[in-house]
Amino acid sequence: MATPEQIREVVAQYAKRVAAGSASEIADLYTPDAIVEDPVGTPPHEGRAAIESFYGALSQAEITTELQGVRVAGNSAAFGLKVIAKTGDQTITVEPIDVMTFGDDGKITSMRAFWSQDDMTVE
Amino acid sequence: MATPEQIREVVAQYAKRVAAGSASEIADLYTPDAIVEDPVGTPPHEGRAAIESFYGALSQAEITTELQGVRVAGNSAAFGLKVIAKTGDQTITVEPIDVMTFGDDGKITSMRAFWSQDDMTVE
Repeated sequence: MATPEQIREVVAQYAKRVAAGSASEIADLYTPDAIVEDPVGTPPHEGRAAIESFYGALSQAEITTELQGVRVAGNSAAFGLKVIAKTGDQTITVEPIDVMTFGDDGKITSMRAFWSQDDMTVE
Repeated sequence: MATPEQIREVVAQYAKRVAAGSASEIADLYTPDAIVEDPVGTPPHEGRAAIESFYGALSQAEITTELQGVRVAGNSAAFGLKVIAKTGDQTITVEPIDVMTFGDDGKITSMRAFWSQDDMTVE
């Protein structure tokens, strides 16, 4: 099983790469057959190509992220992630709680993001 | 499907009952065949009797709770819940992130609490 230290390091890397990494660098944190459901209740993105394509949408924006309290339990982590995306003269802020599971090698096997319109502001 | 308003109301009731309700009143918020995994990675408590017994441990302590940011997505909710338990001259504070799923009637069908010793203080 991945250690709590490994899991915390991957979560920190995830927050960093969502802000400043490419879609490919974000997808590198996942296993090849990982599943991303964001937001929870919508059809999941399964596998490397779908996941990289999903994060590709971020490349249009200037993004900053802020981790808000990482909890590690077993092979899982839950944390708040404030994502601020600037595109043109619009600033979109989304504040999901993300839940991730991890494989033995510390790669992310699944990510589920809990949020709705209520957790998003557009300025 | 339960509405976001129903889900938020049940989450608020849950925080209130963990602080001031009996184990039976907390268990009333769950479906009869619900599953509680607290913390994530430990054997789950399945069904009404097991769940009521699990929350029975709380009745030894004077408890206050504080909800920290409820996110609703689909039939699920994720939220921080600060739980402060005073027993004798000891104060235990635990700050899990809880994830719940809900049935059509707004009852809780599962609860998973993400936390470890790192999220607990004893004073």
